[in-house]
Amino acid sequence: MIVMKGECSQKEINEVVEVIKNWGLDAHLSQGEEHTVIGIVGDTRKVQREYFLHVQGIERIIPISRPYKIASREFIPQSSSFPLDGVEMGGEGVVIMAGPCAVESRSQIMETAQAVLEAGGHALRGGAFKPRTSPYSFQGLGEEGLEYLAEAREKTGLPIVTEAMSPEQVPLVAKYADVLQIGARNMQNFALLHAAGEAMKPVLLKRGMSATVEELLMAAEYILSHGNRQVMLCERGIRTFETSTRNTTDINAIPVLKEQTHLPVVLDPSHSTGNWRYVTAIARAGIAAGADGLIVEVHPRPQEAVSDGGQSITPERFQEMIQQVCMISEAVGRSIAPSKVGKA
Amino acid sequence: MIVMKGECSQKEINEVVEVIKNWGLDAHLSQGEEHTVIGIVGDTRKVQREYFLHVQGIERIIPISRPYKIASREFIPQSSSFPLDGVEMGGEGVVIMAGPCAVESRSQIMETAQAVLEAGGHALRGGAFKPRTSPYSFQGLGEEGLEYLAEAREKTGLPIVTEAMSPEQVPLVAKYADVLQIGARNMQNFALLHAAGEAMKPVLLKRGMSATVEELLMAAEYILSHGNRQVMLCERGIRTFETSTRNTTDINAIPVLKEQTHLPVVLDPSHSTGNWRYVTAIARAGIAAGADGLIVEVHPRPQEAVSDGGQSITPERFQEMIQQVCMISEAVGRSIAPSKVGKA
Amino acid sequence: MIVMKGECSQKEINEVVEVIKNWGLDAHLSQGEEHTVIGIVGDTRKVQREYFLHVQGIERIIPISRPYKIASREFIPQSSSFPLDGVEMGGEGVVIMAGPCAVESRSQIMETAQAVLEAGGHALRGGAFKPRTSPYSFQGLGEEGLEYLAEAREKTGLPIVTEAMSPEQVPLVAKYADVLQIGARNMQNFALLHAAGEAMKPVLLKRGMSATVEELLMAAEYILSHGNRQVMLCERGIRTFETSTRNTTDINAIPVLKEQTHLPVVLDPSHSTGNWRYVTAIARAGIAAGADGLIVEVHPRPQEAVSDGGQSITPERFQEMIQQVCMISEAVGRSIAPSKVGKA
Amino acid sequence: MIVMKGECSQKEINEVVEVIKNWGLDAHLSQGEEHTVIGIVGDTRKVQREYFLHVQGIERIIPISRPYKIASREFIPQSSSFPLDGVEMGGEGVVIMAGPCAVESRSQIMETAQAVLEAGGHALRGGAFKPRTSPYSFQGLGEEGLEYLAEAREKTGLPIVTEAMSPEQVPLVAKYADVLQIGARNMQNFALLHAAGEAMKPVLLKRGMSATVEELLMAAEYILSHGNRQVMLCERGIRTFETSTRNTTDINAIPVLKEQTHLPVVLDPSHSTGNWRYVTAIARAGIAAGADGLIVEVHPRPQEAVSDGGQSITPERFQEMIQQVCMISEAVGRSIAPSKVGKA
Repeated sequence: MIVMKGECSQKEINEVVEVIKNWGLDAHLSQGEEHTVIGIVGDTRKVQREYFLHVQGIERIIPISRPYKIASREFIPQSSSFPLDGVEMGGEGVVIMAGPCAVESRSQIMETAQAVLEAGGHALRGGAFKPRTSPYSFQGLGEEGLEYLAEAREKTGLPIVTEAMSPEQVPLVAKYADVLQIGARNMQNFALLHAAGEAMKPVLLKRGMSATVEELLMAAEYILSHGNRQVMLCERGIRTFETSTRNTTDINAIPVLKEQTHLPVVLDPSHSTGNWRYVTAIARAGIAAGADGLIVEVHPRPQEAVSDGGQSITPERFQEMIQQVCMISEAVGRSIAPSKVGKA
Repeated sequence: MIVMKGECSQKEINEVVEVIKNWGLDAHLSQGEEHTVIGIVGDTRKVQREYFLHVQGIERIIPISRPYKIASREFIPQSSSFPLDGVEMGGEGVVIMAGPCAVESRSQIMETAQAVLEAGGHALRGGAFKPRTSPYSFQGLGEEGLEYLAEAREKTGLPIVTEAMSPEQVPLVAKYADVLQIGARNMQNFALLHAAGEAMKPVLLKRGMSATVEELLMAAEYILSHGNRQVMLCERGIRTFETSTRNTTDINAIPVLKEQTHLPVVLDPSHSTGNWRYVTAIARAGIAAGADGLIVEVHPRPQEAVSDGGQSITPERFQEMIQQVCMISEAVGRSIAPSKVGKA
Repeated sequence: MIVMKGECSQKEINEVVEVIKNWGLDAHLSQGEEHTVIGIVGDTRKVQREYFLHVQGIERIIPISRPYKIASREFIPQSSSFPLDGVEMGGEGVVIMAGPCAVESRSQIMETAQAVLEAGGHALRGGAFKPRTSPYSFQGLGEEGLEYLAEAREKTGLPIVTEAMSPEQVPLVAKYADVLQIGARNMQNFALLHAAGEAMKPVLLKRGMSATVEELLMAAEYILSHGNRQVMLCERGIRTFETSTRNTTDINAIPVLKEQTHLPVVLDPSHSTGNWRYVTAIARAGIAAGADGLIVEVHPRPQEAVSDGGQSITPERFQEMIQQVCMISEAVGRSIAPSKVGKA
Repeated sequence: MIVMKGECSQKEINEVVEVIKNWGLDAHLSQGEEHTVIGIVGDTRKVQREYFLHVQGIERIIPISRPYKIASREFIPQSSSFPLDGVEMGGEGVVIMAGPCAVESRSQIMETAQAVLEAGGHALRGGAFKPRTSPYSFQGLGEEGLEYLAEAREKTGLPIVTEAMSPEQVPLVAKYADVLQIGARNMQNFALLHAAGEAMKPVLLKRGMSATVEELLMAAEYILSHGNRQVMLCERGIRTFETSTRNTTDINAIPVLKEQTHLPVVLDPSHSTGNWRYVTAIARAGIAAGADGLIVEVHPRPQEAVSDGGQSITPERFQEMIQQVCMISEAVGRSIAPSKVGKA
């Protein structure tokens, strides 16, 4: 949709129409009182949008078609769901993933896994490879961490969610993990998205801290278009001017995403607030707004955590959180997905 | 708290200490490995913070005391509550205020008031004076609108929430209204805050669209410090880069405010989303996060509304919303405040 | 311009067309491969945009016409200029307004005025009424401050720029001031804009810290549409996530405004950085980007300023700044407007 | 620096002090009227900051030391400079890098290189690997593109700036490029930063679109700490609420960076505005604000560019831009670095 300037000439309009026809597309004119608008009809992926920014008589170009396809509810109207080792993600039951920011030691992850299981959590999260803002911070245990996670799964039956930070890590991480996590800083690491699209594992795609909802869906489209349809989207807070919390939970994104895409949507109230004091309240809000699940940082002794301890909750608070989330789930006509306890 | 540069001289430190003492305050030195830090002890309102930005050896100045006092929970630990014509705001019951963006006609406001009452709402909102971005848009009915609101109150028993846009409007609006609303664009209209502080009516103070939580509390402090203690704070969405919704609901602000202040906190899911499709989901989220009430735009025929129709819900949807909010209230151990139905 | 959903029915399209015709406007259909787009032709101010948000089959509504008129370059292609007591604002010469944040005393403003004059400044700024975030901060000298400003004008010949904070202050301020300033926090204080539109004095309209360029132009339209055509726009920094400076100078806004409006554009590098260290660099950048003038905070002893001292520069630095700005003006084919020195 | 709550007990203070001593650090108390502040003295990299978020009596933790070291001007007071194939980056002369967004064909890059050389540019930019928001967009020519770039260098003598998108691309790109570019979306791709730190080539590090200045410096620290000291920082616009331009040029970042780091700073006015109409004005502003160089998108026929054509300028406009930038350079006491013309 091209908006011509008020004072543009017929010649300028003709030139634009000409170019559109040369691309094998149709042009459709609409003469308003102040502006002429030219619609482009056909497969608009052939359009060189930038071309028009150089034509004198053009005021604005407005895209009409959504830039993503497989991710859209128009393409797949029914909500997608897929199993995480026996737990259905995207179904009626709310799924809760929890664990420490980073795998720190064998005993730490075993203890946390047990606590997550007992509290009623459905999956264990924990980072073996850690993206850190400072080169001087702890960077994760690497493959050793993955091995501990696998051991924790064996012991508790909880599927594992863990992050891959680069394309070449994907096969290694996929060997151990049940869910590949793409971190917020890598949401537009296209080489990594490509690799995740070729892995045969569910992917948890975190929204970049300054990515729009549309960009999140485009990033999902990268993974989907490479063949992997098991993608869940994660709101984890966006960057705004507000400083009383680490990020601003974009709670609106939950109903917006549920409307625009069929993919499951989860909330990470730990990163979206950055402060354990607010995690439970925001977890409740996320489920009340329609999220399909939560991913929460839990640490047996947050004050000793090597990273993100400030936003981690204790197993006791996690148990309380699950109870409250359970009440909210029922208030919105859902429930918590069946517990893994007793199945391990 | 003053952080000196690594390379600052003893002379520079001494000068800073001197100045602080001249203000009748104490200076307290703390020598670190990289930096010397000077704490200022005493009534820091005497400090000319800007002074220090000009001293060569100073790197940063960090305020330690909160800049507001009466609004803080440190000052008043117990949550404040006050009656809105028989309904308690800030108590255990969730309070729901609803009505059209603007009073458009006698019949429109009477019809809406009746619908709000029947659905279980506790107060009627409606603008008689409207702040509009465009000088060519409808600016409100003025005093005529206030009269219609008063008539609606008489008929339904619902207290009235309506906006005053300038200090000189305050006496007029206060004559008719039960709650004075200060709009988001006026959150730092200090002359208006001053006037509201002298009115003997409860005030609904909306957060500016780019105001921090701390600035909202400072604006409340203006009202409180002029003698009016009946202030409720309203989160109504902040401005961010995200464009899929009109504003971004800062849901984090709800637990943050509940922690930092004793004042009641309400959410406006109509403005915070800008789209009726998301209003109910975000209303649920707000109560789940701990809000004490909601203020919602309801219009009998949103498609005919002269303003904000896109974010208004119909009376039918409002009734559903109240039912859902009721379930969420109970899930968080509260309830909806007692209905006005039958009392009018 | 209305974008219908892909799956909308012919009946839904007909209904939308019907409504448009009922408003006395024309509808123009454009059938794309994925979407039908309906253009509305005629005076679109009659359109109730919100109506469409409630029609099931509609996906999006896109405004084509700009919402402002008198402020636009389409309406008035030639750049506007007007005299500030003998100095042309909006002409070839760059105009520099300077002075303290607040008028603090008779001697402070006389001393500053003299320094501004001698350095080559063209107008004296200074606040008599001060909007302050905290109710406990200095609120300005009021009319006494205006009298000192008038005395400074008499002595130096410099025209006076000072702020009015509410509609009822406008006549008083206009009695003393040569330029009425509307502060950033009041950019959408519509009652004040209305009053400024009826004053017969030039207005300096500051951009709100989270206002878009379009909203700034709409605020200017308020003033213009009430009859006052002497409006200059002031970029003073916007609120972003960046914390190393108080605000983020939106330098892009300068060429954007110069393209979209005929009104003069000035930059306030003091507020847009919040730190005297960066004022001169950003002042140079503003003129290099095409601004018509600057408004800068100058204080004889910034470390003693009662407000904004941290972003104020000394008269010595101001003199250097003017010299540098002069070089930049010449590099972009302009000059500094003729000095007032010797004319007083 | 730890701020205790007003009502905290002596026992709580003692516990905090205990923990700090257990880390081998010193604690330094400062008793204020409202708050006790505890300073931590020693190598604060040992501090688990998150620990304190869980101690009841603590209100806030405030970092005093900067988190980066090698990048800081405190560590290296003198501005760094290094040669780009004979042109000094970070010296007195302003360096201009230019070329198309993407290498599209052999002839396109040869033609552009020639134009850049003739206009007086110092280096040729062009992407062989392209990060694209959509999986359906052109992703670059890959190694073929690198070969064309090498050929263009041979012909014109211009050094090559081109992007590496993942760690495993670094050796390949380094084989052809004179400067490795790290794109904005990869600013916190730590695996890539690590790889760039081990490459023996200068690196152009672009600021993430929502990265703070401090995070940009931390990302530089990753590269520096792995041994590569030839890093230049690039401001390319940040994401804000403003929609009239693609990004908001953070012009303040230029003087801020020049103050905080010794590394050279360049501006990309093409991405920071997203519109060729504003590129020249913002290029001028960047140099006026103190930037050491520019990186600009130039395309012989922008309307045919496969990507970013809307923000590319023609060789004619580029030539004009250089002339104007030259004038600005002189106005700030610098010059344009010596041209490569005649040396090839």
